[in-house]
Amino acid sequence: MTNLVYLDNNATTKIDERVLESMMPYFKEEYANPSSMYNFSKNSSDAIKQARTKVRDFVNAKDEKEIFFTSCGSESANMAIRGVLNYNKNKKHIITSKVEHPCVLNLYQALEKQGYKVDYIGVNSNGELDLEELNEAINDDTALVSIMYANNENGIINPIEKISEIIKSKNKDTKFFVDAVQAAGKIPIDVQATGVDLLSISGHKFHAPKGIGALYVNSKTMITPLIIGGHQERGKRAGTENTPYIVGLGKAVELAQEGLKYELTEVKRLRDKLETNIINKVYNARLNTGIATNRVPNTTNIGFEYIEGELILLHLSDIGICASSGSACTSGSLEPSHVLRAMNVPFTAIHGSIRFSLSRFTTEKEIDYVIEKLPPIIEKVRSISPYQKELEQLKQLRG
Amino acid sequence: MTNLVYLDNNATTKIDERVLESMMPYFKEEYANPSSMYNFSKNSSDAIKQARTKVRDFVNAKDEKEIFFTSCGSESANMAIRGVLNYNKNKKHIITSKVEHPCVLNLYQALEKQGYKVDYIGVNSNGELDLEELNEAINDDTALVSIMYANNENGIINPIEKISEIIKSKNKDTKFFVDAVQAAGKIPIDVQATGVDLLSISGHKFHAPKGIGALYVNSKTMITPLIIGGHQERGKRAGTENTPYIVGLGKAVELAQEGLKYELTEVKRLRDKLETNIINKVYNARLNTGIATNRVPNTTNIGFEYIEGELILLHLSDIGICASSGSACTSGSLEPSHVLRAMNVPFTAIHGSIRFSLSRFTTEKEIDYVIEKLPPIIEKVRSISPYQKELEQLKQLRG
Repeated sequence: MTNLVYLDNNATTKIDERVLESMMPYFKEEYANPSSMYNFSKNSSDAIKQARTKVRDFVNAKDEKEIFFTSCGSESANMAIRGVLNYNKNKKHIITSKVEHPCVLNLYQALEKQGYKVDYIGVNSNGELDLEELNEAINDDTALVSIMYANNENGIINPIEKISEIIKSKNKDTKFFVDAVQAAGKIPIDVQATGVDLLSISGHKFHAPKGIGALYVNSKTMITPLIIGGHQERGKRAGTENTPYIVGLGKAVELAQEGLKYELTEVKRLRDKLETNIINKVYNARLNTGIATNRVPNTTNIGFEYIEGELILLHLSDIGICASSGSACTSGSLEPSHVLRAMNVPFTAIHGSIRFSLSRFTTEKEIDYVIEKLPPIIEKVRSISPYQKELEQLKQLRG
Repeated sequence: MTNLVYLDNNATTKIDERVLESMMPYFKEEYANPSSMYNFSKNSSDAIKQARTKVRDFVNAKDEKEIFFTSCGSESANMAIRGVLNYNKNKKHIITSKVEHPCVLNLYQALEKQGYKVDYIGVNSNGELDLEELNEAINDDTALVSIMYANNENGIINPIEKISEIIKSKNKDTKFFVDAVQAAGKIPIDVQATGVDLLSISGHKFHAPKGIGALYVNSKTMITPLIIGGHQERGKRAGTENTPYIVGLGKAVELAQEGLKYELTEVKRLRDKLETNIINKVYNARLNTGIATNRVPNTTNIGFEYIEGELILLHLSDIGICASSGSACTSGSLEPSHVLRAMNVPFTAIHGSIRFSLSRFTTEKEIDYVIEKLPPIIEKVRSISPYQKELEQLKQLRG
């Protein structure tokens, strides 16, 4: 087997053929600028309208006017966070978590330099958010709480509805932004039931192309635009509409909605099979999320103690298996993952932690292949570890 | 003939089939996140590298590190303008022109509310920039001069090299941003020879898809990022790279470069044919750019006196001809074009002004069709004009 076994779907996904097919007319004959006034532009502007309705339904927004198309998850997050803060310039306090995506954390670090006070809420050793700490952090000056829906590295789902209740009970003017990039397509999203004010998604995490995202902003939340210019997106996001990708995102959310049950059953079954087999077969493997059960169905994060993750990934890559040690947005960095550090994963495991993330395209054959090939790779990497004594002890204990 | 005659290429263009073809592998098998570390991502990251080199060559930048990919021309402009201003917070003076694209003008209006002083340089009746006024406006506090390369509505090319010399002779610290969205693909661009500091292009204006742009920032010009987050684009533009569109932009600039001669000869010939025939055949037609010769080869802006432009466009649309009365980004607005107002186009012609913009896909047959069909349409619209006496006088004078 020399085919690709792609288990890095939290980094990006393959475009679904049906998504690509839906975009093709807008790459070819339907090339009008959707803002133009002649008949030729009608199909394009109608297609954007339909896609907006689909995204509205996908997150269960009340009104399609609450949906804005953007060029990616990072743009959505920047638009949400800076949009809320610029609109409420007198408030200077923000709350987020220690395990947010780098795009959000880097933005907060930049905001701190501009005079904002940012509280970073911690997580327990399973990766679960400290709600008590969150509750205590909220005050009258809190403009924004920004918590991700599901973590990209460990798959932990945050209790969004509960967080929303905590926020609104402490300060009803505080806005709640949810980065749902890693939740969309994996678990149901309902902005009304969970009471969020702003929520971002990114198409390429659920089989739409890279370069398209959306931001939900409820009608009671005012924001300033990030990209100022033309009247597109009701004046909140300038730039000629990327019709093909918007249509593709519409198709992708439709397919994601239809596929949720499959994610929560079959993808989960394959993830569990992979996880259980590795933990059972490899004595120095540990499940980094411990006993936490509230996880997205496609993700597992496993620490291989006393060995180097980058070396494991290299061996996997050589036989066509793609996995990762953290966010692709930080790859190349030798720093251990900020998420695993926040979870206090022991130093013996943090450098050897690997994320496997599946998708609806992952097959049982692929999972069986990884279950077969990974243990000898780990054994090989263990054999050159400087921690032979510790490994021997672990083997006696768990082997 | 019921086919589409698309003469609105300044609003957007048809994707070149060769551009679409170049993108297809990255919509299909090459879907890796280009930032990932495994072998699978190598083709994607190499493809981005190649596209960057092509854009570097297209604008004749010194180094590919000076090229940043963005999601559109509006993002490029926002990134350039706010990037320069945020990096030089003590300077509060900006100079631009009255005829810039709405995306730039709207941004400057927002900046005025934030305390910036913006001078808007005027143009003469042919649409040519007042260089003396520009020269006088520059002072020690001028952070940025922002002048478009070519105007989207009338096609007038600004003397970029001369402007650059004026700026640097008055204040060598002032940065010069050039919105080249309407110049790219129509005339040669050379950032080194013209001495610009930042320059933006947008793919969909020269047969790449909507949703991809680039910004040139010379190595001596520091900017803050607009979209903060991951390490992509050397930390200046976060977000997973849109590999297919970046590759498509690379192909499109290559084709644009190859096609420049065709633009400057054949496209120009067809534009001139259209323009001359309309002006000669329609007695109430006037060329809004007058005797100005420094124009991009594909654009003509013709005022039809004493009649309504929207009505002309409607009739044209009914027989499959796409043209426009101004920027698509402001369409729907009943305000006459800010560009034609700045040119002091007489009120008798400003409401009846139409822009025709050709591309390398425009055929002689299409131009002949418009030359045949337009005069009777104008006659029909004239017949219901309330200005019959004035029209009769014009007819006597020019008919």
